[in-house]
Amino acid sequence: MKVQSTPRWGAELKEKEVIKLAHGSGGKLTRELIDKLIRPKFGNRILDRLEDAAVIFFPPHLLAFSTDSYVVRPIFFPGGDIGKLAVTGTINDLAVVGAQPLVISCGFILEEGLPLATLNRIIDSMQKVACETGCEIVAGDTKVVEKGAADQIFINTTGLGLIRTKSSLSIERIKPGDQIIVTGTIGDHAAAVFVARQNLPVKTSLISDCASLYRLLESLWNLGEKIRFMRDPTRGGIAATLNEIANRRNFGIEIVEETLPIQPEVKGICELMGFDPLHLANEGKAIIVASPESVEIVLSLLKQHPLGKNSSVIGRIVENPLGLVYMKTNLGTKRIIDLPVGDPLPRIC
Amino acid sequence: MKVQSTPRWGAELKEKEVIKLAHGSGGKLTRELIDKLIRPKFGNRILDRLEDAAVIFFPPHLLAFSTDSYVVRPIFFPGGDIGKLAVTGTINDLAVVGAQPLVISCGFILEEGLPLATLNRIIDSMQKVACETGCEIVAGDTKVVEKGAADQIFINTTGLGLIRTKSSLSIERIKPGDQIIVTGTIGDHAAAVFVARQNLPVKTSLISDCASLYRLLESLWNLGEKIRFMRDPTRGGIAATLNEIANRRNFGIEIVEETLPIQPEVKGICELMGFDPLHLANEGKAIIVASPESVEIVLSLLKQHPLGKNSSVIGRIVENPLGLVYMKTNLGTKRIIDLPVGDPLPRIC
Repeated sequence: MKVQSTPRWGAELKEKEVIKLAHGSGGKLTRELIDKLIRPKFGNRILDRLEDAAVIFFPPHLLAFSTDSYVVRPIFFPGGDIGKLAVTGTINDLAVVGAQPLVISCGFILEEGLPLATLNRIIDSMQKVACETGCEIVAGDTKVVEKGAADQIFINTTGLGLIRTKSSLSIERIKPGDQIIVTGTIGDHAAAVFVARQNLPVKTSLISDCASLYRLLESLWNLGEKIRFMRDPTRGGIAATLNEIANRRNFGIEIVEETLPIQPEVKGICELMGFDPLHLANEGKAIIVASPESVEIVLSLLKQHPLGKNSSVIGRIVENPLGLVYMKTNLGTKRIIDLPVGDPLPRIC
Repeated sequence: MKVQSTPRWGAELKEKEVIKLAHGSGGKLTRELIDKLIRPKFGNRILDRLEDAAVIFFPPHLLAFSTDSYVVRPIFFPGGDIGKLAVTGTINDLAVVGAQPLVISCGFILEEGLPLATLNRIIDSMQKVACETGCEIVAGDTKVVEKGAADQIFINTTGLGLIRTKSSLSIERIKPGDQIIVTGTIGDHAAAVFVARQNLPVKTSLISDCASLYRLLESLWNLGEKIRFMRDPTRGGIAATLNEIANRRNFGIEIVEETLPIQPEVKGICELMGFDPLHLANEGKAIIVASPESVEIVLSLLKQHPLGKNSSVIGRIVENPLGLVYMKTNLGTKRIIDLPVGDPLPRIC
């Protein structure tokens, strides 16, 4: 396994260097924080793979283990809430490494004054999506901080799953020529949260795509080595996922603008606000890298499921340019797709 | 397994009912929140055991799975910091159910403006204690919230361990006549954090007992059924642990004041501030319930380890009074030891 060598931070860290919002964006600063501060310290073979879930060999099983904290604002938004997001997010992180989610833990940090009825609604959402996916919330913790020391509610979910795919999914198995599939329209979550946050004077039917991908992705697990890699493109959007592949494997990635499934309302918000839809977070979509000959069967399996009906091929792995993602635009030009640098929408998940 | 039936909250929750600081105290309100809101929703056989770690049968293994979020203030205190606390806390929750900690996940919630050097120190502490215990931090997540939306840094750690005890430790195995052992002086963590927080004009050498109990408790795992149950008495202190035993099993518990190991400085702070040392949090102590005939061997094993050198028997399980914990005081009277009601020291862990 290839592990990038990056200079580490240490004693030379100056007091004036501080955490910025963009350190949580899923973009360049997030990667810098992980590569320079966190990985050199915690570094081990499992963490260094930087997959969505750690894969642990626990004879005779392969287990997947994944954690995420959720700080989304507002805590209720069209299509979901922080509870649904927390449980689906962890389920999806397990599902994209080919694991069936079994048990989930849940850590609440609550701000003094949070209405119990609000917590009650959030817990209902969590339990509903856990039930639908067939996993259980088996461990929990509740901390309370004084008013003003947190923003209503933060939730950590950590999940344990059993890997069911015959061959392990990994960024290391991707080859030039492989096709890139997205399981539906992009940017819906970020756009819906943005609208909810701004109280925009526009009527919109836009809702977050927040959903458990387990049943959808499970349908591909019998395809074996044809499926190389899966990832749910959350913070940093599709651009972050594709750049991670290009960067870690030193391949190029070509995507084709006219094939990108984007809802008209999301497109409108992007034009209005100057957002790049490729940078927007998704919470119910997967990027699948598959062998060229398997594309038809993958698409037909995905389209049998309501969450996959807008699946499409959006690009492919190419040998060059090394480490870069580019898009063939509708104008016939090529545009480099980079990682987001700042964070246009902090606290999106 | 006995599961208490308690009325659940639901539709009747009124908007005016809100989260109070004491819901995070480990005392009465914490129990009410869990029993009335969380358990009825998430309820399943594993969660209902309410052990420090969920025990999952994963043939041929028994796994332990535990989560905790940490919000301690100040984030650096004599004897530790939030990072050391987060990793030891999860290690200890696994160790008290007889599990060897294997992998840990770590979720950071960072406030914009946190110095990177501060995060760096905290990560060093986490890695140090994980290494000492022989476990690895294999999965992580970092979220950033805007200045004022969190208090510096909150950490969630979730751990996965392999149960190594021959017979499973459980509150259900406790019998009248069993002896109650504490592995050292009580209240040190809460008292040290209290002093750090108040900037008291007293010189004190008091430090938090924050430590990994894995090596200490592992020495007892060969004793089999003689060890009934273990628990690390953190929030809510020894009073909370003993009340949970008495309440869930409907036994009485007698403790003897003169046998309680308490440092003079902790005693002094309790007298000055009106704290009950039995309500103070510990972060490097275990309560062990053991069969009467095994007490000598248990104490001799514990005392071989630096963290166990002040181990002592502090009481025993009695048939009556049902569900109550009482203390034989130095004055020859008996005093009921109840759960803490408010929270004298919020954000102690």
